[in-house]
Amino acid sequence: MSQSEFDIIKKYFETPDLNQENEHIELGIGDDAALISVPDGQNLAISTDVLVEGVHFPVNADAGLVAKKALAVNLSDLAAMAAKPFCFTLGLILPDASEKWLGKFSLALGKMAKEYGIALVGGDVSQGPLTIAIQVHGTNRFGESLRRDKAKVGDTIYVTGTLGAAAAGLLCVGGPSHIGDSFKLIDDHPPKNYRDFLVKAYYEPKPRINFALRCKEYINSAIDISDGLQGDLSHILRASKVGARVEIGRMPVSKEASSCLTTENLYRAALYGGDDYELCVTVSPENCAKFEQEALRSGTRITRIGEIIKGSEVQLVSVSETNFLVDHPYLHFNKNSFE
Amino acid sequence: MSQSEFDIIKKYFETPDLNQENEHIELGIGDDAALISVPDGQNLAISTDVLVEGVHFPVNADAGLVAKKALAVNLSDLAAMAAKPFCFTLGLILPDASEKWLGKFSLALGKMAKEYGIALVGGDVSQGPLTIAIQVHGTNRFGESLRRDKAKVGDTIYVTGTLGAAAAGLLCVGGPSHIGDSFKLIDDHPPKNYRDFLVKAYYEPKPRINFALRCKEYINSAIDISDGLQGDLSHILRASKVGARVEIGRMPVSKEASSCLTTENLYRAALYGGDDYELCVTVSPENCAKFEQEALRSGTRITRIGEIIKGSEVQLVSVSETNFLVDHPYLHFNKNSFE
Repeated sequence: MSQSEFDIIKKYFETPDLNQENEHIELGIGDDAALISVPDGQNLAISTDVLVEGVHFPVNADAGLVAKKALAVNLSDLAAMAAKPFCFTLGLILPDASEKWLGKFSLALGKMAKEYGIALVGGDVSQGPLTIAIQVHGTNRFGESLRRDKAKVGDTIYVTGTLGAAAAGLLCVGGPSHIGDSFKLIDDHPPKNYRDFLVKAYYEPKPRINFALRCKEYINSAIDISDGLQGDLSHILRASKVGARVEIGRMPVSKEASSCLTTENLYRAALYGGDDYELCVTVSPENCAKFEQEALRSGTRITRIGEIIKGSEVQLVSVSETNFLVDHPYLHFNKNSFE
Repeated sequence: MSQSEFDIIKKYFETPDLNQENEHIELGIGDDAALISVPDGQNLAISTDVLVEGVHFPVNADAGLVAKKALAVNLSDLAAMAAKPFCFTLGLILPDASEKWLGKFSLALGKMAKEYGIALVGGDVSQGPLTIAIQVHGTNRFGESLRRDKAKVGDTIYVTGTLGAAAAGLLCVGGPSHIGDSFKLIDDHPPKNYRDFLVKAYYEPKPRINFALRCKEYINSAIDISDGLQGDLSHILRASKVGARVEIGRMPVSKEASSCLTTENLYRAALYGGDDYELCVTVSPENCAKFEQEALRSGTRITRIGEIIKGSEVQLVSVSETNFLVDHPYLHFNKNSFE
């Protein structure tokens, strides 16, 4: 390929969708660093997530889907802090400078950046195994961030959306799940509309930014569900020094995931599957009514799944079979890969 | 390996050297995002550089050297903006979770972070081909950033330190240079002290933070030399819409690089080699005396190499042979790799 790093940046990453104007961006792409100013009285929330081909998405995955997923998982971290998207940088490592790949990637990234109002301000493009390292910056007022360490005994635990569909979607795209060999689809070839739903859940999670910004005043603590409810809720418990009781049967699942997985695998997907990028939040009893009302207004489905109790662990409560409920959070070094 | 991402972060990246206290860091490692506040009246300078094994450093390179280089190249971008190091994030992709590798990496990263006063506030650890994606944040007062687009006709062009040693160091560690096959050491086995100097220049560039912070008021424009003087100075020229005349014979070179390369290759290394991470700055004539004095006080060697003129290109002036001086900036997609 004859394109240099500079040609690639100019052609694919200096687009109107990606380089949105913002009075607080003094200098964007094109110098040794970007220069931003943070509005008075506001914090900057900073988060980074790295996606590697063959580990976090299948080899030869569609470039547009990869772009969407890479930005979504980062935006999801801002949602979990109730931070308003501001700007991001992109570290892009490519095996070659394919025009087609770059065109699709840039277009999808720009579309999503525009939707969420986040501007690309800098980055690095280099040669190597396909990897996308995105770092996002969001703003929120001092003291208004949602954190993991503020859950209180008595809080109601909610999750947004449904859980487990992304884990089933991973199976649809041929990914080996870290849950184990027995985690599989009932039918390897589910109906097309079901399959499409599950694959979309895997590739195109919806960062809950709008929900978080609208409902934050009623929320005590929050985390985004990237590794499965059990593991991520455990982070809240550790940080807040509390326990939790979760009613398995209350966990919200989609009809598509329910139809394509056995009951056992459905709940394993919800608890240990990950990739959902929904939010798990805890709310004081006195705020639950207002919280539910505001969530409804934001158009976000929320479900009560349990409560914060004294202790240090997630107690899973079920009226039926619980033998599959072993602790199995996401381990990045499990050597699961698509290859 | 049985270590999870969380174990690795706790053990290797939550160390005192890396998690330095800073009143402007409200929340560091451990939540969905870090929370920082930017001091009143200050900008945040943001830059990211990604290093890939086999592309930016040799396969099986020492983990400590990789850590130093990864942070140094990012700090160098802050130096080029005259921004004071503040905090950084680390996206670390590892083929396996080797205790030995992580221990050396973490120790060297922490040592350097402490030296430059920059705190690790977040990151992501994942499995995949060895890659280090660092993003740095620095602060400076509004309007006091050094930029590429402020060079003026008549400015004197200076560079810090010496040029070309890193390109020779790359040859010492077995790297194929993008300059071409004819770029090689006079003797494949130079004297040990010379080899050590060149390899150190390659792995352990010194970000010119102190120099930049002390001398910024006298500087019109600046860039760090990552891709070779010719290519990087050209970025200043494009951004500032000016030209430059550079006297080849004035380019500062070390005795080690001079001894190990032919004259022709020595100047090719300085002009096109890259990896120097020195600064190239331009200074108005009326500020040169004060600039030189302040640089001297900061303990940084500086050398006048030419001047900014009308035009749009780098004119290389030499009394002798110039036939090797073809335009050859660093192209990341040249497919040069260590493998």
